[in-house]
Amino acid sequence: MKLGRLFSESKGEFWGVVEKDSVLVCKESWFPTGKVELVGEELPLSEVRILSPVLPGKIVAIALNYRSHAKEMGKPLPDEPLFFLKPSTAVIGYGDTIVMPPMSQRVDYEGELALVISKKAKNLSEREALSYVLGYTCMNDVTARDLQKKDGLFCRAKGFDTFAPLGPWIETELDPSSVEVTTKVNGEVRQKGNTSDLIFGVSKLISFISQVMTLEPGDVISTGTPSGISPLSHGDTVEVTVEGVGTLKNIARKA
Amino acid sequence: MKLGRLFSESKGEFWGVVEKDSVLVCKESWFPTGKVELVGEELPLSEVRILSPVLPGKIVAIALNYRSHAKEMGKPLPDEPLFFLKPSTAVIGYGDTIVMPPMSQRVDYEGELALVISKKAKNLSEREALSYVLGYTCMNDVTARDLQKKDGLFCRAKGFDTFAPLGPWIETELDPSSVEVTTKVNGEVRQKGNTSDLIFGVSKLISFISQVMTLEPGDVISTGTPSGISPLSHGDTVEVTVEGVGTLKNIARKA
Repeated sequence: MKLGRLFSESKGEFWGVVEKDSVLVCKESWFPTGKVELVGEELPLSEVRILSPVLPGKIVAIALNYRSHAKEMGKPLPDEPLFFLKPSTAVIGYGDTIVMPPMSQRVDYEGELALVISKKAKNLSEREALSYVLGYTCMNDVTARDLQKKDGLFCRAKGFDTFAPLGPWIETELDPSSVEVTTKVNGEVRQKGNTSDLIFGVSKLISFISQVMTLEPGDVISTGTPSGISPLSHGDTVEVTVEGVGTLKNIARKA
Repeated sequence: MKLGRLFSESKGEFWGVVEKDSVLVCKESWFPTGKVELVGEELPLSEVRILSPVLPGKIVAIALNYRSHAKEMGKPLPDEPLFFLKPSTAVIGYGDTIVMPPMSQRVDYEGELALVISKKAKNLSEREALSYVLGYTCMNDVTARDLQKKDGLFCRAKGFDTFAPLGPWIETELDPSSVEVTTKVNGEVRQKGNTSDLIFGVSKLISFISQVMTLEPGDVISTGTPSGISPLSHGDTVEVTVEGVGTLKNIARKA
């Protein structure tokens, strides 16, 4: 099932189940009830705006989680998950504009598989971790590469408004152990990875992070990017596709 | 005025204006109305529990913002503010327990002046920055020093549950340009700094961060710690005092 947060002129913001070309309208958000209750109304997908599928309390993103990307960054492979936070204020949805700020001279895409937490989680084992996942979506961990290198810390480089495109919806049925993650710029493939190459898989990530911090419903964990990073230019269309989920498309523009 | 978020058995969670030994009960939270309306009820301060004065959407904390601390960490002085995020799930209030996790062998206190944002802010000039501050409070930027060194990134080291003691209340009248920040462990002074020694002052920090990310009401910026860091032991009482604000007291315990 593909759960989306949507907007139409007549309905305002609403939740829906996205089918091929249409949206089945839900009575309310999946959060906090945990239920999908359809009201019997159907809208053409082309007539709604797709919002980011969740407004996360926190976004935990993983660094250097594909061997190929660690290599291109010239970094050793981590022996434990390395993670950082992106602020919720950076979240945008499908079709929204990635604004490249004047402070940076190089803004890169980073296509990733992300997961959305369904219920409060702390000190989870790897075995139980997947039962705390509502579903999966695409994330573009947009990064000001020059500022990342200058600061060492990632917060500024990855924390600009619009630097966390998320969506288009949450696929609740995915097996995340072996799906392709592809990033295209203006239709040309730039990144092509598979989650079977993750150094730390989804269960391990959730379990590990939950030893550190309480995860809450709606929190997002983004699993890291494969190799093939490069900068965006003004006017570029960037598409992150996770196999079995869908495609998150955004356009980059200078501020 | 000292604005607090408080709890009593009879009232549950409520907001109040803290005076010497008493609390004047407010009708509602300062957020989002921006008003302090007293209901005419007064409680002895000793009979209420002091909660963290705000539940921040984000906590932006500054690294290496006192020359003395940059020196003790063996780091060069930054030419621009260096910052990181602490997750909201780490926040605890006055009197709550700092839980030292088994994952770390060295958990340090870091006493800091923090400020609370009053209204949505983006691209502020230094001149207007202070008019976006509701007030000031104390923060203990608790840090797993061993994990900070291992990871390079600060998220794990500074993101554990209970690692963001905040409080005891928000002082709305403070001039932050020259106040003493003191940390005591078991009554012994370990840190003694003054915000006049900040490399980047409060106005500069707010302005700079707002060029990167939208600040929202209730967001917290913690201004960095002076020299004198050292580890906490099981059972230690740690007190962060900001002159003109008050004292934030917590006890550290092993998980």
